Amino acid sequence: MNRAQLIEQIQLKRSFLCIGLDSDPVKIPVHLQQEADPVFSFNKAIIDATRDLCVSYKINTAFYEANGAAGWTTMQKTLEYIGKSHLVIADAKRGDIGNTSELYARAFFDTLSFDAITVAPYMGSDSVKPFLKWSDKWTILLGLTSNEGASDFELQPSGEEMLYERVIRTAAQWGNEGNLMFVVGATRAESFAQVRRLVPDHFLLVPGVGAQGGSLAEVFRHGKNKDVGLLINVSRAVIFASSDEDFATSARAAALSHQQEMDALLG
Amino acid sequence: MNRAQLIEQIQLKRSFLCIGLDSDPVKIPVHLQQEADPVFSFNKAIIDATRDLCVSYKINTAFYEANGAAGWTTMQKTLEYIGKSHLVIADAKRGDIGNTSELYARAFFDTLSFDAITVAPYMGSDSVKPFLKWSDKWTILLGLTSNEGASDFELQPSGEEMLYERVIRTAAQWGNEGNLMFVVGATRAESFAQVRRLVPDHFLLVPGVGAQGGSLAEVFRHGKNKDVGLLINVSRAVIFASSDEDFATSARAAALSHQQEMDALLG
Repeated sequence: MNRAQLIEQIQLKRSFLCIGLDSDPVKIPVHLQQEADPVFSFNKAIIDATRDLCVSYKINTAFYEANGAAGWTTMQKTLEYIGKSHLVIADAKRGDIGNTSELYARAFFDTLSFDAITVAPYMGSDSVKPFLKWSDKWTILLGLTSNEGASDFELQPSGEEMLYERVIRTAAQWGNEGNLMFVVGATRAESFAQVRRLVPDHFLLVPGVGAQGGSLAEVFRHGKNKDVGLLINVSRAVIFASSDEDFATSARAAALSHQQEMDALLG
Repeated sequence: MNRAQLIEQIQLKRSFLCIGLDSDPVKIPVHLQQEADPVFSFNKAIIDATRDLCVSYKINTAFYEANGAAGWTTMQKTLEYIGKSHLVIADAKRGDIGNTSELYARAFFDTLSFDAITVAPYMGSDSVKPFLKWSDKWTILLGLTSNEGASDFELQPSGEEMLYERVIRTAAQWGNEGNLMFVVGATRAESFAQVRRLVPDHFLLVPGVGAQGGSLAEVFRHGKNKDVGLLINVSRAVIFASSDEDFATSARAAALSHQQEMDALLG
């Protein structure tokens, strides 16, 4: 899904919601545990219940890799079930020397046909650029993350700026608004103004609303641009809204509440 | 494999060589391509030919993920084939918010039973500490990598030091010499003296000898400690020493040459 299609979907659905399929095998409702592939059954029900409310799904690879090879099969089936209607992100936080990043890109863009992958910036340009060679795909680079540990390095000074600012400023030269996004956590809403000075036009993938406590309204106020330019990810607060047999209904209610807030913000 | 066992193996084998199974599916010798699992057949032959010359194998997850779920099965079979005689490292460069890093640890330490995993530091303490909860396993944190892109962020000033120094200095407080190593690239041998000031006793995993051009002798001179404290990784220069039917013999010759150089350096 390219930038124009993504913007179209946001306007059509009045939503810039991304639902994170952090489908922890041990948290799947009990009544699904006897299914052949409990995580896939769970994902299918969540996707059926939320498809019209979100423009993107994010698959957090850790939760699938915990099941080994079988988890990779679940990931593949989930991708196929979602289809082409949504921007599907591999939240994989990969990144390595050039020849290795190239193989990660092949794994997630070709073998699994994700639209996008999250990438860690620590190793610099040659660890990121191989992903950007797939010009019809998205590289989503970590900028300022939503967790406490962001203060250890990301929020430390790096010359005249902070490390996350250097990362965003530098990496903005490696890609463009059509193939590069940045992760900026909702728990640091006050930083969005500075991020927008660095990358006014890029889309930002925003975790941290929901279980982590960030405010959607604050992020929108400081972070939106002329194309909205935001994908707000919510994972646990949607998919594990209930652990009972009504989990899909509860997930829809949680997603709907976010979509309605977005509808109101879009004005 | 714990620290004492690793040191014992180094002394016994007169080797601190780690062989990187960067087994790119498209580079497997032609005569193996009709096997049921060409990468596994290739790995088996490489392991058989080099087992007595190295103390560690490093599996670069990218090269397996390029084959999707089947690649994860290959990784698992390779791990089982190596067995408990070597320190087996998942070169996975993972790292995410706490609950996600915990799942990665479960995936690589429990589901796949690796001894060690490489972790990216960008997201800070709560992205690294979950791995360290497995006290009988190793977390290998990226410090100063061997690639050109290291100059983008790792070698930039971070307050009074460089970012990689801050990372190593800070993270050294999160673990100890028995569960934490650092990646320091051989292509920057002049940095080992500074790294040793920060972490005199930790083991360092050193990529960059071989295809990337780093010098084993220089790394040993500046980087060794009283327990040797180094694992020198060589990937392509060993496993793809030849692409013909004699590939395993050629791999052994390349590994032997490294082991003999190590033997001489150990004195």
